[in-house]
Amino acid sequence: MNPADEAAFAATDPAFEARIRDSFARQSFMRTLGAEIVTVAPGRCDIRVPWKDGLGQQHGYFHAGVLGSIADSAAGYAAYTLMDAADSVLSIEYKINLLRPANGDAVIARAKVIRSGRLVTACTAEVFVERDGEEVHCAAAQLTMIRLEGKSDG
Amino acid sequence: MNPADEAAFAATDPAFEARIRDSFARQSFMRTLGAEIVTVAPGRCDIRVPWKDGLGQQHGYFHAGVLGSIADSAAGYAAYTLMDAADSVLSIEYKINLLRPANGDAVIARAKVIRSGRLVTACTAEVFVERDGEEVHCAAAQLTMIRLEGKSDG
Amino acid sequence: MNPADEAAFAATDPAFEARIRDSFARQSFMRTLGAEIVTVAPGRCDIRVPWKDGLGQQHGYFHAGVLGSIADSAAGYAAYTLMDAADSVLSIEYKINLLRPANGDAVIARAKVIRSGRLVTACTAEVFVERDGEEVHCAAAQLTMIRLEGKSDG
Amino acid sequence: MNPADEAAFAATDPAFEARIRDSFARQSFMRTLGAEIVTVAPGRCDIRVPWKDGLGQQHGYFHAGVLGSIADSAAGYAAYTLMDAADSVLSIEYKINLLRPANGDAVIARAKVIRSGRLVTACTAEVFVERDGEEVHCAAAQLTMIRLEGKSDG
Repeated sequence: MNPADEAAFAATDPAFEARIRDSFARQSFMRTLGAEIVTVAPGRCDIRVPWKDGLGQQHGYFHAGVLGSIADSAAGYAAYTLMDAADSVLSIEYKINLLRPANGDAVIARAKVIRSGRLVTACTAEVFVERDGEEVHCAAAQLTMIRLEGKSDG
Repeated sequence: MNPADEAAFAATDPAFEARIRDSFARQSFMRTLGAEIVTVAPGRCDIRVPWKDGLGQQHGYFHAGVLGSIADSAAGYAAYTLMDAADSVLSIEYKINLLRPANGDAVIARAKVIRSGRLVTACTAEVFVERDGEEVHCAAAQLTMIRLEGKSDG
Repeated sequence: MNPADEAAFAATDPAFEARIRDSFARQSFMRTLGAEIVTVAPGRCDIRVPWKDGLGQQHGYFHAGVLGSIADSAAGYAAYTLMDAADSVLSIEYKINLLRPANGDAVIARAKVIRSGRLVTACTAEVFVERDGEEVHCAAAQLTMIRLEGKSDG
Repeated sequence: MNPADEAAFAATDPAFEARIRDSFARQSFMRTLGAEIVTVAPGRCDIRVPWKDGLGQQHGYFHAGVLGSIADSAAGYAAYTLMDAADSVLSIEYKINLLRPANGDAVIARAKVIRSGRLVTACTAEVFVERDGEEVHCAAAQLTMIRLEGKSDG
């Protein structure tokens, strides 16, 4: 499947959204961040974190670790949309470029699957910071997930 | 400078430790994680986070984002030990491999500079999880920092 | 600048194309690969390598190193389109995901700038393999370049 | 297994070296580079390329793509030492930091396994350039390999 075909991703598990929201609810770190799933669709997931005290780096902007954390969760769930109910998903690795200071009212990671293989799923995630009513591109990530077949997430 | 020479890193600013602890204290996200600097030395910095509820992924282990966050801060400060008091440090990018589930009592990121250039500093960070009195290697990161000359961190 | 604005990249040096083709001609490794610049435009560069014996991995497909090499050169030149005639460009780091076996008649790396800062430029590169008259997405890279101000490339 | 335990890696296939040298001999790209395996041992592999015209970037130093290529092959074979004769190995992704200009008489990539799982193997590779009788650390890579069980490499 090529980038132009990404729209063609189809979920084999019709209940993928409930499965993902349930898994997300068990990620206590997402609660700590105040993160919420904004969108989940086959091969895609967006996660958003409004600014609050306790998320800053030394200049008071969103810490790069917050951006990496939501990029990782969003990509994991984007990959997980395409897996079976009996599977579990784990991050193998991720890489993130910090493009601009993440100072603003919220950050949102928009992740998508770029390759869904039997074992390995590759994703990208764009992270935007909401500033003055605009979305500013503040980070770009590339991430690799693995399917654990038959190991339920629950 | 080669890996064998790493011990040779010398800080030009004798007050580097106070400068770094002051910057770290301003990273409110590190407080949220419950992170503390365990060690800081020329070209090195270790950051540790004890387990607490609110740091988990879906299976209740440390979230990969926690590991990436402390690897990033530790590497940034390892780089910053070698900079001048008038400089500031920013993360350009980081990449982390998750090697094993991070289930245990604490995680510790041990970062070191592998190349200190005029503008760019490259670091690695090993992340360990403390489990049953042992340190288990659970993640490996490679990170790139940039020096902002003459832009004080304060 | 946001992704939607990428079309807005403008080259400050009107002679950027000649400068880049001259630099490329001095990359003897690109000659060894049989690589050619297909397109160069502000913030973009595509490099293509037709298959020939001597480029294979153990199964006779394009070696991952070939894909990484043209992704790196393409991204370097995409970044360099936006720099001044007096500047030079160097790769700081790159990361590439191998998505599918690169077996086909040619590979092409399509690189673009996603963030052009004063010192650091971040790029992505998509690599496609031409197979049966189609372009198949076989690798995705994320790359970081640095500008050496006032150090001519020649 | 922790870093301190790396020496403990053991190959289950006593004929791993012959298997790897045979696979390497089928990588026609390594011949093009003039690469040779210097060392292969359980969890380790070093690959070396002497300088020759045709390997340069624009300033006449080793092209970053050459460094990435031998880091990738060396890490793939380091991982492959620990797999079974019936298995095959593929690169999922690699990331490389270019630390210094690679100008010298030869480059050598020293790869080692840092985590050998059932499916996924994580490696690091240090690349050195030989200059004036010394080895200068010029690149650091982190790489991920996957085992294809029961798919012979031949």
